[in-house]
Amino acid sequence: MTNKDHTDLSGLCIHTVTTRPWDIEEAAKRYSAAGVKGISVWRDVLEGRDIRQTGEMIRDHDLSVVSLCRGGFFASKDHNKRSVAIEDNKRAIEEAALLGAPLIVLVCGTDPTQSLDDSRKQIRDGIAAILPEATAAAVKLAIEPLHPMYADTRSAINTMLQANDMAEGFNSPFVGVAVDVYHVWWDPFLKKEIERCGEKQNLFAFHICDWKIPTADLLLDRGLMGEGCIPVKQIRSWVEAAGFNGFNEVEIFSGSYWKEDQADFLRKIITAYKDLSNERI
Amino acid sequence: MTNKDHTDLSGLCIHTVTTRPWDIEEAAKRYSAAGVKGISVWRDVLEGRDIRQTGEMIRDHDLSVVSLCRGGFFASKDHNKRSVAIEDNKRAIEEAALLGAPLIVLVCGTDPTQSLDDSRKQIRDGIAAILPEATAAAVKLAIEPLHPMYADTRSAINTMLQANDMAEGFNSPFVGVAVDVYHVWWDPFLKKEIERCGEKQNLFAFHICDWKIPTADLLLDRGLMGEGCIPVKQIRSWVEAAGFNGFNEVEIFSGSYWKEDQADFLRKIITAYKDLSNERI
Repeated sequence: MTNKDHTDLSGLCIHTVTTRPWDIEEAAKRYSAAGVKGISVWRDVLEGRDIRQTGEMIRDHDLSVVSLCRGGFFASKDHNKRSVAIEDNKRAIEEAALLGAPLIVLVCGTDPTQSLDDSRKQIRDGIAAILPEATAAAVKLAIEPLHPMYADTRSAINTMLQANDMAEGFNSPFVGVAVDVYHVWWDPFLKKEIERCGEKQNLFAFHICDWKIPTADLLLDRGLMGEGCIPVKQIRSWVEAAGFNGFNEVEIFSGSYWKEDQADFLRKIITAYKDLSNERI
Repeated sequence: MTNKDHTDLSGLCIHTVTTRPWDIEEAAKRYSAAGVKGISVWRDVLEGRDIRQTGEMIRDHDLSVVSLCRGGFFASKDHNKRSVAIEDNKRAIEEAALLGAPLIVLVCGTDPTQSLDDSRKQIRDGIAAILPEATAAAVKLAIEPLHPMYADTRSAINTMLQANDMAEGFNSPFVGVAVDVYHVWWDPFLKKEIERCGEKQNLFAFHICDWKIPTADLLLDRGLMGEGCIPVKQIRSWVEAAGFNGFNEVEIFSGSYWKEDQADFLRKIITAYKDLSNERI
């Protein structure tokens, strides 16, 4: 298997949320003009759009739709909320199919008024409930383990080991794992669990950014690759050794970067991505 | 073995950092007057004091010195800094002996310019370097796993499993583990690793507070027990089932609580501690 070439931009994908002030049309145009080849689409930028036409517009810009973000949020003590979440995830599958996105990233959810184990069971049930639709639509579902600091309100799946366990429990080519360096870099079992994920053909997506020192906000202070302490290139080497040859997806939530000129920010993203190939390990 | 009684305050200990504006004399006087029976002393409050006399002052207030906080910070790429850290930890052992503290809590350290594995090796070497002094002084060392959000600058030991592995590697009655609910509550292996810790006689300390939703600051926004999503009482039941019968140590870093009247805050701490005994599980 040949890994993505990192000396040009053919392996680079950007999440629309990364350049949040841009709408989908501007993001597609700008990414494409800069030579970026992949885009992951957040559902908010599809509001008020014809989704199928938007997919065509994106492909006309020579961009691959890498994923739709995001599904999940399956866990709730309230049965009605769980049903609403399942319906919303089914809509996301329809949207992904219309857009031509092969994958939905799942932020699995949690409910602080119940135990993490209860949330985990509801996540499993939620994925099981939407898997028939995902399979029929040929849309893959990627369980994204979230950093333990998000175990309060965002996800009860906080390590690669948990995500692997859950994905393997489904034993379906349509359920796998999204590895985001921001969430998993600290994990002593990271290399081993990435290898396991690859062996089981479950390594569906690879997200990059960096952990800033200090980190001023738990949610909106991610850094560009190279700005922080995550060994992004090393983790990428593990992911690629595990057989992954998809895009490097830049997913950065940043109150400060969003305030900047996004054209400047896009240039910085591209420079940071290229510099990664020169980074010491 | 009899567990601590939680219906009165005989099992309650407070860290001096929790009521930071108070100096050690005021903290000892106020805790004692409120009926609190334990105090964990942070090294900053000992500055300019005769440490032996301070220990006597504390005991005169009918308070047990539960621990000295904190040692550690062993990891650095810089050999000189590692030597300085080891010397500082040896001083902490002397201070603990003078104060009459039976235990030092270790925030193990990490260096974002090197790999987490390198930091872990240096932590092991650092503990090994000070263990003879700790043993001679009969001062125990408690490895405290820190939340993964502190893997950047505070500790490369981020789970109970890692702390247990490291403590067991020393096979010494003077090296064990401090369990702080704030750092470990999210861990899917928490119950199992607490049981393991107790079986090996390594469960040296138990710290409590809560995880606020939202958490506004990565370091200084801890909550009082009951204010957040940590199942403190459930974790305490696991710790006690594992054989621990020491103090519940309230350790809260909070920019907002530190700004309050500390006498009010102390009353809130006591109420929160008592309410814990009534908490549903």
